[in-house]
Amino acid sequence: MTNQINELSAEWKQLLEQAFEARKRAYVPYSNFQVGAALLDSEGGVHLGCNVENAAYSPTNCAERTALHRAIADGHQARSFEAIAVVGDTEAPITPCGVCRQVLVELCPPDMPVIMGNVNGDWRVSTVAELLPGAFSSDSLTKEV
Amino acid sequence: MTNQINELSAEWKQLLEQAFEARKRAYVPYSNFQVGAALLDSEGGVHLGCNVENAAYSPTNCAERTALHRAIADGHQARSFEAIAVVGDTEAPITPCGVCRQVLVELCPPDMPVIMGNVNGDWRVSTVAELLPGAFSSDSLTKEV
Amino acid sequence: MTNQINELSAEWKQLLEQAFEARKRAYVPYSNFQVGAALLDSEGGVHLGCNVENAAYSPTNCAERTALHRAIADGHQARSFEAIAVVGDTEAPITPCGVCRQVLVELCPPDMPVIMGNVNGDWRVSTVAELLPGAFSSDSLTKEV
Amino acid sequence: MTNQINELSAEWKQLLEQAFEARKRAYVPYSNFQVGAALLDSEGGVHLGCNVENAAYSPTNCAERTALHRAIADGHQARSFEAIAVVGDTEAPITPCGVCRQVLVELCPPDMPVIMGNVNGDWRVSTVAELLPGAFSSDSLTKEV
Repeated sequence: MTNQINELSAEWKQLLEQAFEARKRAYVPYSNFQVGAALLDSEGGVHLGCNVENAAYSPTNCAERTALHRAIADGHQARSFEAIAVVGDTEAPITPCGVCRQVLVELCPPDMPVIMGNVNGDWRVSTVAELLPGAFSSDSLTKEV
Repeated sequence: MTNQINELSAEWKQLLEQAFEARKRAYVPYSNFQVGAALLDSEGGVHLGCNVENAAYSPTNCAERTALHRAIADGHQARSFEAIAVVGDTEAPITPCGVCRQVLVELCPPDMPVIMGNVNGDWRVSTVAELLPGAFSSDSLTKEV
Repeated sequence: MTNQINELSAEWKQLLEQAFEARKRAYVPYSNFQVGAALLDSEGGVHLGCNVENAAYSPTNCAERTALHRAIADGHQARSFEAIAVVGDTEAPITPCGVCRQVLVELCPPDMPVIMGNVNGDWRVSTVAELLPGAFSSDSLTKEV
Repeated sequence: MTNQINELSAEWKQLLEQAFEARKRAYVPYSNFQVGAALLDSEGGVHLGCNVENAAYSPTNCAERTALHRAIADGHQARSFEAIAVVGDTEAPITPCGVCRQVLVELCPPDMPVIMGNVNGDWRVSTVAELLPGAFSSDSLTKEV
């Protein structure tokens, strides 16, 4: 599931590179663990995100969510996105945390590719649905809302 | 993957029943969507949780996390738990959200059963690891901390 | 605003001591920063909480919230609580984070005392309303819900 | 503390107007409660945010945080910001939730103005420090980190 970065399509390779750029801006005074993300929208635009930590820990925001939320704030529709790349300095390619997976399920198509990488150039690709199997979603609320 | 409740072991059936008891105490003025959870510790004790909502939405806490956090506050060790049941009024058995899956990964053994039910008596069982494949965890941080 | 602990009422002194007991159970592998809380309900019962961290940071739960959520799960009504104590190893008495203040506003009376202490025996008392002036609350939503 | 919008400086009036623009993009299928924010950086740039909800409630992100996190992701430094406006359809001018106040404390100067408005044109101004008195911050952690 882990491969070298030069086997990726040009588009996904570029998205990973943009995630590495975003990673440099991470605000991580507590963990020193920098993460970057790049989200591709349906018109070819790219939205960058990095993690932003907080002394109280729970208000910390991850790179993936920064990218997703800003794209919504710029007028992009939920579930209109095409791919997201996320990168960090992990042994294996970094994977999104459960909070980000829940947000990916809410805002992205289930089969949207999630391209995960690390600073060594390792990568793997999964989908939103594979990362959160049997997700709790708005469909789960249907009976009561 | 969905079955009728009377095929469960007596222990898991009881855990589901305790989750239904906890569900009655849910504080849900905003969604009216009640969820209950019951966590079994290694000494046979059971810790109950319900969801507790907040006007600001993001400080909302789920039933599973209430149960897990209180057990830690009572002196139980992380990864010493044996099973958790969670129930809600969903079409299919309710599944934990991504935030709770991330907390389950942190505090429970990967192969711990997660017993999911609904008010119709449907249920299914998964494990912590299956619910968050390739989870981001403390192992992911090893290189930098 | 900061005083020595021996000037407190016996009841609040005991609540602080219980918060120190709870603090020992904190699960803090990432920050090593232990916090404890003790919540007094209207029947004289006390609910203990500690902070419980997560590798992904944002699912981290604070001591105050652990105490509040477990009390709700045990059947106590929102706004029926009488006092909360919170303690940590800070220079001045520890103060609740903004997330916990938002949860205090939701679940406690506005004039409920919040007793804050540290390991040196310093303390000060504030109220829920003073800690989050002009809070966003269910009243703020009235026009639209 | 509440005034009509035409008494504001031209710069703050414009910031409020930009927050109203951002508000239109709110993703709020669960509450239908739209919030917008506009953050002014030290070079005169403005960063827009709206609230983005989630079926699981706790991963919901507020407008203020969307604006702050994206500005960090674009390379702005923590504590370099000059003002933020936030608007919603509330009786009195909307106030930030406790989570956002905690993030404002982390990322903004203590005396930074927070301009709060509503759809009726009411407004009031406070500062980051006034909104979270005695905030828990990185200073609180100094002894242990």
